[in-house]
Amino acid sequence: MSGVVQTALTRQFGWLSGYNGRQFSSDVVAAIVVTILLVPQSLAYALLAGLPPKVGIYASITPLVAYALLGSSRQLNVGPTAVISLMTAATIADLPDETRIVGAAALAFIVGMMLIGAGLLKAGFLMNFVSRPVVSAYITGAAFLIIVSQLRHIVGVEGGGRTALSMIQSLSQQFGQISAITMVVGGAALSLFFLARNSIAYRLVKAGVSSRRAKMLSRMAPIFIIAVFIIASWAGDLEQIGLAVVGDVPGGLPPFALPWVEQSLMQSLLVPAAVIAIVAFVDSTSTAQELAARKRESINANRELFGLGAANIAAGWSSGYAVNGSMSRSAVNASAGGETPLSSIIVAALMALTAMFLTPLLRPLPLAVLAALIIIACLSLLDFRSIWRTWVYSRLDGLTAVATFLAVLLLGVQYGVLVGVVLAMALHIRTTVNPHMPLVGRFPGTEHYRDADRFVVETSDRVKTLRIDESLYYANARTLEDRVAGIVSKHEDLTDLILMCTAVNRIDASALNSLETINNRLRASGIKLHFSDMQSRVRERLFRSSFLDRLTGRIFLSQHEAMEALEPEPDWSFLDDHIDIH
Amino acid sequence: MSGVVQTALTRQFGWLSGYNGRQFSSDVVAAIVVTILLVPQSLAYALLAGLPPKVGIYASITPLVAYALLGSSRQLNVGPTAVISLMTAATIADLPDETRIVGAAALAFIVGMMLIGAGLLKAGFLMNFVSRPVVSAYITGAAFLIIVSQLRHIVGVEGGGRTALSMIQSLSQQFGQISAITMVVGGAALSLFFLARNSIAYRLVKAGVSSRRAKMLSRMAPIFIIAVFIIASWAGDLEQIGLAVVGDVPGGLPPFALPWVEQSLMQSLLVPAAVIAIVAFVDSTSTAQELAARKRESINANRELFGLGAANIAAGWSSGYAVNGSMSRSAVNASAGGETPLSSIIVAALMALTAMFLTPLLRPLPLAVLAALIIIACLSLLDFRSIWRTWVYSRLDGLTAVATFLAVLLLGVQYGVLVGVVLAMALHIRTTVNPHMPLVGRFPGTEHYRDADRFVVETSDRVKTLRIDESLYYANARTLEDRVAGIVSKHEDLTDLILMCTAVNRIDASALNSLETINNRLRASGIKLHFSDMQSRVRERLFRSSFLDRLTGRIFLSQHEAMEALEPEPDWSFLDDHIDIH
Repeated sequence: MSGVVQTALTRQFGWLSGYNGRQFSSDVVAAIVVTILLVPQSLAYALLAGLPPKVGIYASITPLVAYALLGSSRQLNVGPTAVISLMTAATIADLPDETRIVGAAALAFIVGMMLIGAGLLKAGFLMNFVSRPVVSAYITGAAFLIIVSQLRHIVGVEGGGRTALSMIQSLSQQFGQISAITMVVGGAALSLFFLARNSIAYRLVKAGVSSRRAKMLSRMAPIFIIAVFIIASWAGDLEQIGLAVVGDVPGGLPPFALPWVEQSLMQSLLVPAAVIAIVAFVDSTSTAQELAARKRESINANRELFGLGAANIAAGWSSGYAVNGSMSRSAVNASAGGETPLSSIIVAALMALTAMFLTPLLRPLPLAVLAALIIIACLSLLDFRSIWRTWVYSRLDGLTAVATFLAVLLLGVQYGVLVGVVLAMALHIRTTVNPHMPLVGRFPGTEHYRDADRFVVETSDRVKTLRIDESLYYANARTLEDRVAGIVSKHEDLTDLILMCTAVNRIDASALNSLETINNRLRASGIKLHFSDMQSRVRERLFRSSFLDRLTGRIFLSQHEAMEALEPEPDWSFLDDHIDIH
Repeated sequence: MSGVVQTALTRQFGWLSGYNGRQFSSDVVAAIVVTILLVPQSLAYALLAGLPPKVGIYASITPLVAYALLGSSRQLNVGPTAVISLMTAATIADLPDETRIVGAAALAFIVGMMLIGAGLLKAGFLMNFVSRPVVSAYITGAAFLIIVSQLRHIVGVEGGGRTALSMIQSLSQQFGQISAITMVVGGAALSLFFLARNSIAYRLVKAGVSSRRAKMLSRMAPIFIIAVFIIASWAGDLEQIGLAVVGDVPGGLPPFALPWVEQSLMQSLLVPAAVIAIVAFVDSTSTAQELAARKRESINANRELFGLGAANIAAGWSSGYAVNGSMSRSAVNASAGGETPLSSIIVAALMALTAMFLTPLLRPLPLAVLAALIIIACLSLLDFRSIWRTWVYSRLDGLTAVATFLAVLLLGVQYGVLVGVVLAMALHIRTTVNPHMPLVGRFPGTEHYRDADRFVVETSDRVKTLRIDESLYYANARTLEDRVAGIVSKHEDLTDLILMCTAVNRIDASALNSLETINNRLRASGIKLHFSDMQSRVRERLFRSSFLDRLTGRIFLSQHEAMEALEPEPDWSFLDDHIDIH
């Protein structure tokens, strides 16, 4: 037992052995850079989630420590993110004001418990049900919805609505109430953030700054822009002339308390929590895999469930809200030299200091500036090109992606994943409904059997062989029944039908049932049913049923053996099955 | 165009040419036998659906004519059936009394429109999504629920509840209100119907009656039993002492009218109608296929959608309710000698005569007798053995069946199909999440490549070959990424990785994305990615994307060519990958 514990500890904290001063100073520098990004982001995402700014800060302290201790990625930075904030907003929007904060904390707690539960059940494989086109279309849809939802802060109106259409509708209805000063500040912030993202690095490099330093400076630019707006808002007292600002943010560490809510509220949080857990897990794990691959490391999906689960329980327990891995901050951490999970713990400590001492500075920060920050962050999540590439490569996958995107915009952020997952499953199964099932005949002078509709082969009027080029399972079992019925109705002299099963990897219960049906129908017509070339594990499985007792014909090891036994002297084929192809 | 019409007419009414007096007398005899069965069944199923008895009779006239004119099966008898009546009951139970009848008609109308719409879209393939274990477990669950729901009529209490548990609960609460006379009549009817079904034929044969005639007499026995109860109830005026009876059934033909309902009601009917349409279609088509196969005929699923759709539109239009194909009546029709769709049209005419002239006779019929008739009919739908056989053959299929059965009992009849369909899809996809992906090496002295963990083969430390034994798609794309990451992290000298794609029939957009990811990660580690043995249609599909431009390695036609080019002098394998298997 202690050996197991020791292995687990080594796996988790192996980086501590050999940890040295150089690594520590790298981690500290990276942590400072990440914190500078995280402070405004935590406020902005809380705004997006419909929560007070302090909740965003609270969600950026204990979850980072929990993940650093239990997660499997050394590079992943967890905390508030855009998509999960939007999902939280959709879940808690209907709650009365006084329960919204505790509701968000309870939601995070439930998400955490679900992730830990999934980890205990080793349910990491569930991730395989969410296809790439669904993930990328979902994130694109959510980012688009977020951008639309933040427009109201940029133009200074109340806004409203859940879906993209209703948001745009309520914006257009409130067109008369637009605040001029908010639009000026919002527009300026948008332009500055946009420039900072797109051209500062390039200009600095042109001006002779080293590429690495230019990149870092361009990443720090937003904090300077935010500082300028804070100073301008404070100096000009812009709140007086109608500019919405962050307002008082209570200082101090997050209060620790289990988020108790009424049973009825808890029940209503279960389904949204499950959807958030799936999205958070899929998104974080993809990000962690991406980061790990760059260092030739690998990620364990089941351990990832524990790390992310612990982070969300910590968020719920310390008055925060649901968190997941942030690609942007993780990437900044890595490129600023952060090497170990200690960097995340230092970020948490710096955020705690911020919560204790720096909140008064944030008071005059205009909401329009935070909204602009969210919009710019979401622009980089819009990935229409990948939806288009998917469409070009495969219509079916493209259809899934488009349906997911539209479901997010028109039905709401909760339904997109569900629509995508079910549609992707259905379309995959659809591709196997009509397998290639040609009649085959002997290639003259050989023991090889080929499609009778593509080759001139020897066949027999009495004995036909049908080759099945797919596993037999419920979705194509009836196709086989129809195919056999079609063959029987067209060949009156038929006495024996052989099913050649070379490519059948699996026969499920429905297909077995269909084989029973086919066997019975053929018997009623005086035709025997045989099998050839069946894989041994499929044959062994069939022995578990009583089908073989009732089979009218035989199971031949090879197709050639079957033909030798049933029809030693076949005729030449006259391609009489040409019209049979589908 | 006229040629097309003529072909369609020939296909539909081919049986008319050569129709003769002998066939006509067979059809008439069969129609009389079916009608004798159908009169009490139509009353009983209307009772089950929570509708007045006349609605059951109305649903047994025009739908039969519509199906005879448009359906693809010559033997199928449509009309009210147990499962669809239960689904109708669940849908209209919450409606106020005055809209329940028109609501049921509107439901049938919508079901019909949906089936016709599916036929126009050639959506017959959708049937393939409903697996056999799901259908049989669903029908068993529904039959069980119906039996429980009818117990209240046998013991003469009010009853209540939607799910099996709540029905039993309300029965036990009303234990004190049991009506003695109802229990006596119900118990007697149950025993008589049970005997009629199980031992009359056997006794008649023993008494020297021919087997065919004995079978027919035992099938007619229920109508004699019902007649006895009608006479006893009328003669003893049992209604006076607390026996619930059918009561006044208004005579006359069904009123023809489009079932107009409010828009909000119509919207609430859409989802139940879709579920009913799926169940009716799957069930009818299975029945029709079964009947057609006995005569070496075949069924066209898309035409079946039109026939069944027209029957439901007719039911809705003539004040009836939703119908589908009845296995029991179709079988009776066939064994009584019914040969053509004209038999169904004669049944409809006889039912119309019943509606016009015979309804006064039905007045004293006890409801307990109808409930007993329903219970006996549903006993033959219970198929626990098939659920058990499914479980023995395959745990996964068995799980789906049990979940479907429990969903019907505990969640209600609407959810069973949904739970079953989604679970069956998910479990099928689950089986392909972890394909067999062995490292392979050259079988010494040959050009054959075999699993390095099962054979002693020649391998190389620099060049590894991974054979993929499954199509690559979203559910297993990440498994491949992990497998490659595992190989890379264990082989430090690796310079080239070959993916051997013999068994890869398809690469979807997610898998392409994973291949891109793998290519990028390997490039970052200085490893080239190659492919071998790729099927030509998969390769052609890849050319549509720009992946091949970015591929670091090459696409080799054969695995042997790849190894000759990359590593002409491999070493012997020391089974170093043995621990690698999953």
